[in-house]
Amino acid sequence: MTGPRRYAPAELRAFCTQALARAGARPGDADLVADGLIAADLRGVHSHGALRIGIYVDRLRAGSIDPGAELEIVRDAGAVAVADAHAGLGIAMAARAMDLAIARARAHGIAAVGVRNGNHCGMLAQYALRATAAGQVGIAASNADAQVAPWGARAKFLGTNPLAVAVPAGDEPPIVLDMATSVVAHAKVKGAADRGESIPPDWAVDPSGNPTTDPAQALAGALLPFGGPKGSGISILIDLLAGILPGGRSGPEIVPLYQRLDEPQGVGHLFMALRIDAFCAPQAFAQRVDETVRRIRALPAAAGAARAYLPGELEHLRARESRTRGIPLPSDAVAEVERTAALVGLAAPRPLPKEA
Amino acid sequence: MTGPRRYAPAELRAFCTQALARAGARPGDADLVADGLIAADLRGVHSHGALRIGIYVDRLRAGSIDPGAELEIVRDAGAVAVADAHAGLGIAMAARAMDLAIARARAHGIAAVGVRNGNHCGMLAQYALRATAAGQVGIAASNADAQVAPWGARAKFLGTNPLAVAVPAGDEPPIVLDMATSVVAHAKVKGAADRGESIPPDWAVDPSGNPTTDPAQALAGALLPFGGPKGSGISILIDLLAGILPGGRSGPEIVPLYQRLDEPQGVGHLFMALRIDAFCAPQAFAQRVDETVRRIRALPAAAGAARAYLPGELEHLRARESRTRGIPLPSDAVAEVERTAALVGLAAPRPLPKEA
Repeated sequence: MTGPRRYAPAELRAFCTQALARAGARPGDADLVADGLIAADLRGVHSHGALRIGIYVDRLRAGSIDPGAELEIVRDAGAVAVADAHAGLGIAMAARAMDLAIARARAHGIAAVGVRNGNHCGMLAQYALRATAAGQVGIAASNADAQVAPWGARAKFLGTNPLAVAVPAGDEPPIVLDMATSVVAHAKVKGAADRGESIPPDWAVDPSGNPTTDPAQALAGALLPFGGPKGSGISILIDLLAGILPGGRSGPEIVPLYQRLDEPQGVGHLFMALRIDAFCAPQAFAQRVDETVRRIRALPAAAGAARAYLPGELEHLRARESRTRGIPLPSDAVAEVERTAALVGLAAPRPLPKEA
Repeated sequence: MTGPRRYAPAELRAFCTQALARAGARPGDADLVADGLIAADLRGVHSHGALRIGIYVDRLRAGSIDPGAELEIVRDAGAVAVADAHAGLGIAMAARAMDLAIARARAHGIAAVGVRNGNHCGMLAQYALRATAAGQVGIAASNADAQVAPWGARAKFLGTNPLAVAVPAGDEPPIVLDMATSVVAHAKVKGAADRGESIPPDWAVDPSGNPTTDPAQALAGALLPFGGPKGSGISILIDLLAGILPGGRSGPEIVPLYQRLDEPQGVGHLFMALRIDAFCAPQAFAQRVDETVRRIRALPAAAGAARAYLPGELEHLRARESRTRGIPLPSDAVAEVERTAALVGLAAPRPLPKEA
């Protein structure tokens, strides 16, 4: 059995940029989206990598992603702004909104930017990491279409409502938590259904509200929030703060990414940035974060674990490897890249020669 | 078997105020602390209610809580401030820091206040709720002494690092998430040990890192974070943002509340406030939050559940009941209140007459 074939990041990125351009995206937007997809693939978060190029192109062609949209600031209170993404390319609009939060935090020490009428914006870690690159703590949250039952209910209401927080370190890589607030992503259940596999009983409930190991029943029922009532509470708050606070939609009103392709999704996001040097001396902070990272790594390991990894550490190691060896693209992503290539009339990127 | 005896909230509050005053607290501080303790008891969070009056008095008498301390702003960047609590009464210092965040958010739309050299500050929901009373979203986080193993490790490093977020509604009560980032609070394991009961195997690990149902082994080992690696990540971030960012201590450096009573604990907090009307029209927001609350309540119930409750809803209902019927104080809290009364030379509050 051979593993997934590897692709040169630059070639994959160029393909994504060109495919988006052929579907009508402006160069600046296409670059931001391609960067976001490749960043995800590099970190091993393939569910938000080149796999998504197909649906973005589909939605551009169907008109539900508007390549002409500009991020419009509709409310401006200095350290707080609200932007309307006007159904533009999700990742491009989100990156600009995060950059706005970073700029405002530069002026005020802290800032928040809410976004309404957004589209699927990929891996949230990328936005939080834009802040660490500017010497800031970055926080990103997004709501999403209803797939998850609030704790105590058995019907879909919440999205997988992800949250990312990144903190810059010194010599160590930034600490980056990026998590769905469901036990697992929808894609994992869908994948199990496609492969005819069963799922663990704590991922989802069937339409009657009972735990199920049958992914088809899970998809008909609802995913469960992570961590029981606590994760459910966090997810509800993300729907309120990323969806409703910027004047946008709540989970059940959001159009799913792969359904009703001619309708904009109406996703909401909240981006926050905190300038380290508004709180303390950045050098001292960096040193103490490094120290904490090393102390956690050096703790005695749990039964069955190699050691404790910091949030985002494994993804950082994967990215370092993939930058030199190429991105190991899973077969479903390769299939979507090839389908997209045919759709827009481009040659699909070719895998790297097999390693000796 | 009879349930716990009920106490009049006003009488319990007056007792706490007087006990703190006799131990040297200034009137304003004693009021804030008593309010915080009674708010917790009203909400049924007895682990942070009058139960704690004893240790606060002990620490005042031992000198590790300084009744003369003022919250000193040591760094001021407009929307961001850092305060040194100088080992003052934890709840009083924390309430003032939250109020500072609320005032700064009034000016800037959003604000954050970090606190170092704090002490145990009780139920975090009280700070988040100070913000909703001002038409703002409130966020409160605190680090704590090491009791929890980061995911992948088997040794204590993190505190139970709680997080509270409150969002104002319209006619509905505010939504208030207030949670430890461990599966359970340390007090629950301690209680099981005292009563000779076993604990569920997912609460803690023994010193070898294996799941244990023996609370003594759990106390010698480490508590587990809620939600596996996700909750562990949130807890690590709280240690960084509430502890290290304001220039304070990390978990392993914090003095446990019930040990080394002559040393200040050095707890760190982070308080944030977001003004609703910086993002959108508050009336419209309140209406949409109410709508969301009612939609979630009306969802079909999960197997074995009555219905989905919003974060903080059960606590709100309990507070409403206890305000009229009195606070049902658990026996360990009654014992601490009586011990404290003897210590400071006050009569202990008497329970209400038994209900017919």
